[in-house]
Amino acid sequence: MKQLSPVNQHCGIARSLEVLGERWTLLVVRDVRLGVTRFRDIRERLGIAPDMLADRLAKLVDLGVLERRGYREEGARAREEYVLTPAGEELAPVLVALQAWGDRHLPNGLTPGSRTVDASTGEPVHVGFVDAAGQELGLDRLRVERVPAEDVPAA
Amino acid sequence: MKQLSPVNQHCGIARSLEVLGERWTLLVVRDVRLGVTRFRDIRERLGIAPDMLADRLAKLVDLGVLERRGYREEGARAREEYVLTPAGEELAPVLVALQAWGDRHLPNGLTPGSRTVDASTGEPVHVGFVDAAGQELGLDRLRVERVPAEDVPAA
Repeated sequence: MKQLSPVNQHCGIARSLEVLGERWTLLVVRDVRLGVTRFRDIRERLGIAPDMLADRLAKLVDLGVLERRGYREEGARAREEYVLTPAGEELAPVLVALQAWGDRHLPNGLTPGSRTVDASTGEPVHVGFVDAAGQELGLDRLRVERVPAEDVPAA
Repeated sequence: MKQLSPVNQHCGIARSLEVLGERWTLLVVRDVRLGVTRFRDIRERLGIAPDMLADRLAKLVDLGVLERRGYREEGARAREEYVLTPAGEELAPVLVALQAWGDRHLPNGLTPGSRTVDASTGEPVHVGFVDAAGQELGLDRLRVERVPAEDVPAA
């Protein structure tokens, strides 16, 4: 990732956005997470051009976020679907945090298309900051610290 | 947001990425969150062209994520800096979830440039899923449910 500025090389946000920071990429991950695993179904949901979707899927496979899995419906030829890898599963907090922000700050009156719940109770869960003991902390309880790096000029 | 497909209109992720899903946009929010509030300092950290940074800052102000605030250093003319609005503060879980994912799945051997801590103890915090009682739930405790909408074709 030589194209990142010195500061950005130290930043996991920058490195993540370098590979995920394009609208379609995370929406493909969203759809696969929702169980929409086949090319045609993803394409129809996103309204994306086939060549662009093929490009994003290949990129996500290369990145280790999705993997291809063969399936065959009776009487049809073998096809491939896409499933999340463990690294893909771990994008869940990113997706759900984006969903919550959009529902709160960009409302459009429509019902959300999915929700994430506690599997044992069916109750909704949300994304938040948690301390080492597993207790949620509000935004007003946090402090952000910059960590100086010797190879980066202070700004 | 007429350009979104019917499925995506229901999706807070899609609406958020429509306005934030471009690499520089979230990196600008990151920098302001870290206290880098002045145009020249942000530009130097990001290595971004001035006209592109001006465009992203204007967009974030229009969106209600940043606001401009005047300041004047002794003997200098009045200038503007940028601060987070409450909606901007609420992007913290998105940013820290992206940071954690990048540090874990896109490591490059460099130290992270910032960390988010419990302001009262200085101990690190992380982003996770939390139930209504404020208790963290692991990814293996979750279920994702699709919510059918009458105006969207099932895929």
